[in-house]
Amino acid sequence: MTTAKKNSPSSVSLDRLSIGIDIGGTGTKFGIVDRNGNVLFSSEISTRGHSEVESFIDELHTQLYTLIEKAGGPGRMRGIGVGAPNGNYYTGTVEYAPNLPWKGIIPLAKLIQNKFQLPTVLTNDANAAAMGEMMYGAAKGMKDFIMITLGTGVGSGIVANGHLVLGHDGFAGELGHTITIPNGRYHVGTGKYGSLESYASATGVTATALEMLDKSDEDSLLRKIPKAKIDSKKVYEAAIENDKLAKEVFDFTGKILGMALANFVMFSSPEAIILFGGLTKAGDLILKPTREHMEENLIKIFENKVKILISHLKESDAAILGASALVWEMKD
Amino acid sequence: MTTAKKNSPSSVSLDRLSIGIDIGGTGTKFGIVDRNGNVLFSSEISTRGHSEVESFIDELHTQLYTLIEKAGGPGRMRGIGVGAPNGNYYTGTVEYAPNLPWKGIIPLAKLIQNKFQLPTVLTNDANAAAMGEMMYGAAKGMKDFIMITLGTGVGSGIVANGHLVLGHDGFAGELGHTITIPNGRYHVGTGKYGSLESYASATGVTATALEMLDKSDEDSLLRKIPKAKIDSKKVYEAAIENDKLAKEVFDFTGKILGMALANFVMFSSPEAIILFGGLTKAGDLILKPTREHMEENLIKIFENKVKILISHLKESDAAILGASALVWEMKD
Repeated sequence: MTTAKKNSPSSVSLDRLSIGIDIGGTGTKFGIVDRNGNVLFSSEISTRGHSEVESFIDELHTQLYTLIEKAGGPGRMRGIGVGAPNGNYYTGTVEYAPNLPWKGIIPLAKLIQNKFQLPTVLTNDANAAAMGEMMYGAAKGMKDFIMITLGTGVGSGIVANGHLVLGHDGFAGELGHTITIPNGRYHVGTGKYGSLESYASATGVTATALEMLDKSDEDSLLRKIPKAKIDSKKVYEAAIENDKLAKEVFDFTGKILGMALANFVMFSSPEAIILFGGLTKAGDLILKPTREHMEENLIKIFENKVKILISHLKESDAAILGASALVWEMKD
Repeated sequence: MTTAKKNSPSSVSLDRLSIGIDIGGTGTKFGIVDRNGNVLFSSEISTRGHSEVESFIDELHTQLYTLIEKAGGPGRMRGIGVGAPNGNYYTGTVEYAPNLPWKGIIPLAKLIQNKFQLPTVLTNDANAAAMGEMMYGAAKGMKDFIMITLGTGVGSGIVANGHLVLGHDGFAGELGHTITIPNGRYHVGTGKYGSLESYASATGVTATALEMLDKSDEDSLLRKIPKAKIDSKKVYEAAIENDKLAKEVFDFTGKILGMALANFVMFSSPEAIILFGGLTKAGDLILKPTREHMEENLIKIFENKVKILISHLKESDAAILGASALVWEMKD
């Protein structure tokens, strides 16, 4: 794969490249990316298979180094960006990540930097996603936006004045845990009640569907599925078959998400909110009530101003692009 | 008044000064301030008395120019900072401010700049207050904090990465209007339900007291006061007399405020939240439940990290200091 560029061939070959590494609970994706967001080379290793972080770093080095050499060698690399759950930008550490095999505080940026001898910067996966959107995606050219990932959980990355909002400790942007319904649904992971994540995630949609099935006698396609097998995908499939209860599940989810988004808008007044992740595949089923209820809760000065956009980055590339985008922000 | 400084006398006299103007619905305060936050000269004119903005600017010029001359003349002034309700930093305008006598969009920064021939910057009063705290007050040296003013209404100014969060349109930081109790108390000014301001303001405390008096038969000192005369001050006075119902009013207010603060923390992870304004005079009556309920709603990574501080700027100086602080951020 090569890149279409306006520069002369010689300047193309001199352009520096960026390495993006996205560490997930199951697998770790990595790739080499140019300034225009083309993933030139990419590959993946298992995260779960390495109970020790050292053996993980060793395999990462072996596999990634092959790509680096294909792409012109380490001299052409500007640096390495890493997105990881519970990643802290300031310290370069991953702290108590429940989904990673390594416990405690892991100095991941330092381990990678020492191994590759390339400057390395790390942040949490949602912040990395936001950087990817700003550099290559739906937020290109924006200085104020909020990225929300609606997957199994709800993640977020906030950009204000053109920079990630990291907070004094590097942990800003936990919008999934903001309380949207006081004394609302219990969240097993946090022990709190009524957080956005407990409603507006794949897990939340499933919980809402089960609750609605319990509370009403309404007929529904979902009643034909054993309860243990109902998930957000099944609810979606029923909703596009025009199943009333399934559609109500998305209406309810959108209502809560919309109200939460209104609150985020009144905090940082973003130009747009970018949504990413599994739930966005439900399209207008969820977007329509979300937009409606966001507007309903906004005071006049914000009405009809804030765009809700769906990320258009390829899902397979997005994680690598996000992590690699951190590199272009590095100071030399 | 002069300033105690380490510099030699000659360098003191050459130090540049900053002008702060705080425009309120009733009166406009202005003063000349040095780098250390000493208000060297100050005065006040009526806002309400000027139905035309031009006559307001004329009187402001006459009165303020006297102070400028006393302080060494216009050459010593670095610029003018203006705090005004509905003030927009990007445009320098005041837009549809319900409490000011001038309607529509007023290019206030430009009018002042032209009249005084000094660079002028304007923002809303809560943002100015935040800058004052960062420059001279409880947030000195902080790069990430949130300022909340608890007065008749609830205002806010947010600082992240050392800069005001203004949003893409200059209207960020309307935390008083975030929905804290879905379908909660009606807000006459906005037509929305359940906003923080409808509970955690002087107006909100009064409304809560009246509701509680209505709903219970409990004896209370407040029952001796005609309903129309009950206000947040009366509730405070009853509470310090150990009146059970009055104390419950503050508990309830603190509970809602604490929950809202938890949400703000999970957004921008500030080092501290600075509270300012009338309600803070209730001290631990409101602070204790606020702290408790903030902690109760925070996920683990934020627990016992965020300070809730009371502004220690003199209330008479705070508005001028805040507006003047904007000047030091100006680019030359």
